[in-house]
Amino acid sequence: MSQEQTTRCIAIIGGGLIGRAWALVFARAGCDVRLWDPDQDVRARVMDELSETCRRSGDDPAALAHVTVLSSMAEAVDKVEWVQENGPENLEIKREIYAELDRLTAPQAILASSSSALVASSFAQGLAGRARILVAHPVNPPHVIPVVELCPGPDTAPEVMNRAEALMHAVAQVPVRLSREIDGFVLNRLQAVVLAEALSLIEQGVVTPLGLDDTIRHGLGRRWVFLGPMATINLNAPGGVKDYLKRYGPTMARLSDNAARGEAFSERAAQIVAAQMPAPSEVPELSLRRDALLAQLSRFLHSNN
Amino acid sequence: MSQEQTTRCIAIIGGGLIGRAWALVFARAGCDVRLWDPDQDVRARVMDELSETCRRSGDDPAALAHVTVLSSMAEAVDKVEWVQENGPENLEIKREIYAELDRLTAPQAILASSSSALVASSFAQGLAGRARILVAHPVNPPHVIPVVELCPGPDTAPEVMNRAEALMHAVAQVPVRLSREIDGFVLNRLQAVVLAEALSLIEQGVVTPLGLDDTIRHGLGRRWVFLGPMATINLNAPGGVKDYLKRYGPTMARLSDNAARGEAFSERAAQIVAAQMPAPSEVPELSLRRDALLAQLSRFLHSNN
Repeated sequence: MSQEQTTRCIAIIGGGLIGRAWALVFARAGCDVRLWDPDQDVRARVMDELSETCRRSGDDPAALAHVTVLSSMAEAVDKVEWVQENGPENLEIKREIYAELDRLTAPQAILASSSSALVASSFAQGLAGRARILVAHPVNPPHVIPVVELCPGPDTAPEVMNRAEALMHAVAQVPVRLSREIDGFVLNRLQAVVLAEALSLIEQGVVTPLGLDDTIRHGLGRRWVFLGPMATINLNAPGGVKDYLKRYGPTMARLSDNAARGEAFSERAAQIVAAQMPAPSEVPELSLRRDALLAQLSRFLHSNN
Repeated sequence: MSQEQTTRCIAIIGGGLIGRAWALVFARAGCDVRLWDPDQDVRARVMDELSETCRRSGDDPAALAHVTVLSSMAEAVDKVEWVQENGPENLEIKREIYAELDRLTAPQAILASSSSALVASSFAQGLAGRARILVAHPVNPPHVIPVVELCPGPDTAPEVMNRAEALMHAVAQVPVRLSREIDGFVLNRLQAVVLAEALSLIEQGVVTPLGLDDTIRHGLGRRWVFLGPMATINLNAPGGVKDYLKRYGPTMARLSDNAARGEAFSERAAQIVAAQMPAPSEVPELSLRRDALLAQLSRFLHSNN
């Protein structure tokens, strides 16, 4: 593609937390980033907020020279190769946005949604450009957590998925390509089973919320930042993963047969956990601290892996 | 306790991977470590292997001056306050070992098993000293992964659990105290549900084994080394964990109701994963590399948390 030779143009729709983090991801990779938010106040403060984000994450604020805030969606998406949409998780609003994006953008532009809750078919259906629409689901915030789930709808073209994967690699994110649409994608399906079992053990009084967190933080999670669950079990038996599943598969199968289900998401479990967690008033400050730690971890892993 | 004033004496039963890692944990904390293995060849090479472990993990080999290899179990456990047993995961052998330990040790000594598969009641039942027997389940290898699940049997005294918890803190491990015996303890129950869902998604072709691992490595796992799953969701909604569960609980409940069960541990899934993983011949070298990375991560987290 001739675009590979020149600066890549990317539109960011929405200037909230996720939209800003995406803007930084693309800007620090040298893309020309065109940001728009329907709210004029958001547009007015977005560059200052991006400077603050850089300061906290240790990113070079010079990257922000690549970001332009536009006053209309039409200007923002003009001539871009990729639109990263970060609108509200509301089906009616998403449908309206995609109808407009499909109309305003060049036919070869890819339209990617940051949605974690809605699958592409739900808002792409019926649109002429549905073959170029997918979900590119980041983890919040994507400038310090690199994984991006690429989830096609039934009409998304394989060539669009290929280009999506290549772009994510080019901007130093880690794309995970799903073969088809599935509720929760991969990441939240994995998170859901952990939360269910965790809440159930806490509600039964087997372990405290802090003990549960320590089990992951200072145990399983330590391996998983290097290896992931599959590579982990591949090293947990002399003969690799097949050997592991032969030795421990029956035990693991029994544990998962007896694992908690949806009923674990109970009011009582929520109360027990909330009683041991920092208060909601501390959430904003703790989130900033988390993001600063994640930025440091990202650099550590980059130099040690 | 007067023992707090003097050097703590610890016996390690078994000189394999786990026993050696435990020896290092206690030795670098300044304990007097007395190691015994029934196999004379293991005893003969254990100090060299410990030196090699220190070299790879960056631990000061001077700590090994605190380790003595004894030629009988009776000598090893004489006058110790804690026995860390690392025998095979075989119920008959465990019962024999604990009958002997109960006979050979001072009545106030605590007998702790590294077992991941057997609960304390299964080998402590009927012994006079069953109140001082518990499982202290480490993650392999404990000198670079600090969590230790402390799981009592029905007869384990609360005072024994208190002392166990204090000792683990004193040697810089992270104890997670369970209130009662449960199959798989906490860590393997959490691992089991992740593996089941992961293997099912892979077997269905939704995601590749490498994509699955990337989702955790470069996604969820990044947060979990700082926060754990409960502290993570406490920051994922403005009003904290209660707000999170109100907003996303129904979705997470639906996903866990539809999650994979024991049947996911299939031959077919094992084959698909094995085909994308490093070959069994690479397991020893990759395990050493993993442990070296874990040692570096441990130092990173220690200085950044």
